[in-house]
Amino acid sequence: MIQSVERAALILKALGSGTPRLGVTEIAERVGLAKPTVHGLLRTLAACELVVQDSDTGKYALGPAVLQLGNAYLDGSELRARSLLWADSLAQRVNEAVWVATLSGTRVIVLHHVFRPDDVVQILEVGAAIPWHACALGHAIAAHDPRREELLSDDLPPLTGLTRTTRPALEEALAEVRRRGYAVEDQEAALGDAGVAAPVFGRDGTPAGAVGVVGPAERLLDPARRDAITLAVRETARALSRDLGAPRSISPHPASPGGSAA
Amino acid sequence: MIQSVERAALILKALGSGTPRLGVTEIAERVGLAKPTVHGLLRTLAACELVVQDSDTGKYALGPAVLQLGNAYLDGSELRARSLLWADSLAQRVNEAVWVATLSGTRVIVLHHVFRPDDVVQILEVGAAIPWHACALGHAIAAHDPRREELLSDDLPPLTGLTRTTRPALEEALAEVRRRGYAVEDQEAALGDAGVAAPVFGRDGTPAGAVGVVGPAERLLDPARRDAITLAVRETARALSRDLGAPRSISPHPASPGGSAA
Repeated sequence: MIQSVERAALILKALGSGTPRLGVTEIAERVGLAKPTVHGLLRTLAACELVVQDSDTGKYALGPAVLQLGNAYLDGSELRARSLLWADSLAQRVNEAVWVATLSGTRVIVLHHVFRPDDVVQILEVGAAIPWHACALGHAIAAHDPRREELLSDDLPPLTGLTRTTRPALEEALAEVRRRGYAVEDQEAALGDAGVAAPVFGRDGTPAGAVGVVGPAERLLDPARRDAITLAVRETARALSRDLGAPRSISPHPASPGGSAA
Repeated sequence: MIQSVERAALILKALGSGTPRLGVTEIAERVGLAKPTVHGLLRTLAACELVVQDSDTGKYALGPAVLQLGNAYLDGSELRARSLLWADSLAQRVNEAVWVATLSGTRVIVLHHVFRPDDVVQILEVGAAIPWHACALGHAIAAHDPRREELLSDDLPPLTGLTRTTRPALEEALAEVRRRGYAVEDQEAALGDAGVAAPVFGRDGTPAGAVGVVGPAERLLDPARRDAITLAVRETARALSRDLGAPRSISPHPASPGGSAA
């Protein structure tokens, strides 16, 4: 590990964590480094246009070069490219918004978002980062991810009064994902919202990400629609896994007996 | 400048330049560093999840953490936040797609994109990077940018047979932007497409970015519509500049005599 690069990455992440403009002192506190060290790193990051300094306040913010990198990441993402048509057809089939996401650290990052077909005003959530333990997409990935132990050992904060945060509760949730082949989240990330998601596997048999529907809990978890929604999500995840080259044994047909990848 | 951070930024930019997956040797060639140096930097960047290594091929790609940074940049961008309503109303007024962009290095980066109101299938271009000299947005910014000399001194490649690339041609184009208050690009970035843009100024009186319309050349540059379009673009840029706190003298009303910021 090259220490200065690691520290520069910490600074970028601090600037990307919700407060868009921070002073040197604030950054130094957040990353736990001395001010002169942070100052030197910021000057270098600014010269590379990864951060910019506000001429008025002297505070620092992420620079437009990170947006270009984010866009290049999306352009190069095989999961995203292969999910476009599948996500569209899932949104049409269940008439709900669809998200495709991948795991980054302890968060799932939304790579693709299809708006709910019948709705007009919606915000594009591509790039949004959600704590893995608070959403169905995160549960779907974590249930099969080699880093599962690491994910469970973190200090997991509640996002609502309903977020499961204890190790036993989350282990049970992940075991259920492996049994049923899909994850359900009921208002654990935001009150009123729910999600149903299934894991998408890559060529190496580990999760490349997950695909799922998101929307109002009373509509998504309506007992009259729930079976149709979970089946549609599982079939989409399976088709997308096959497209990504996942081994057949790991993405069984949802209708087949014992059809959950364990 | 901290050399290893600078080198890490070069590697990220190499991975973000069009070929999504590169091997260590390819990266070493592109950034002009020895393979072991590049390897050490890649390992650190991978530990920070800014890059990922493909388990099949061993090649490296940008990691999902850069997408999260890009999204955080957009969320924190004052230019983007303040442009949302203005860009919408410009799109409605001229019935064309609208882009808001800022300069990063020698490229303009699209921060906001409003689809053409009458059209269905369009690709969201947020995050796209266009060489400044090949688009109206870039000309609009460069005409007033303190880094103008630097921008003009680069080796500027043509994107189409119509791209202006010589210093005299570009100096003339920028002088015209300063005289008229707007920039026009006719198929210099892509054959068939044109753009009309005007600079948006920030509190310090330098360009924070530009706003403009993009679309088919025959429609955008139709003599019957051109005056209405350029006026709408200039009025939008002026309103947005005022919103950003630009000094009144620098964003004069388009209709006022001699109303171009020189």
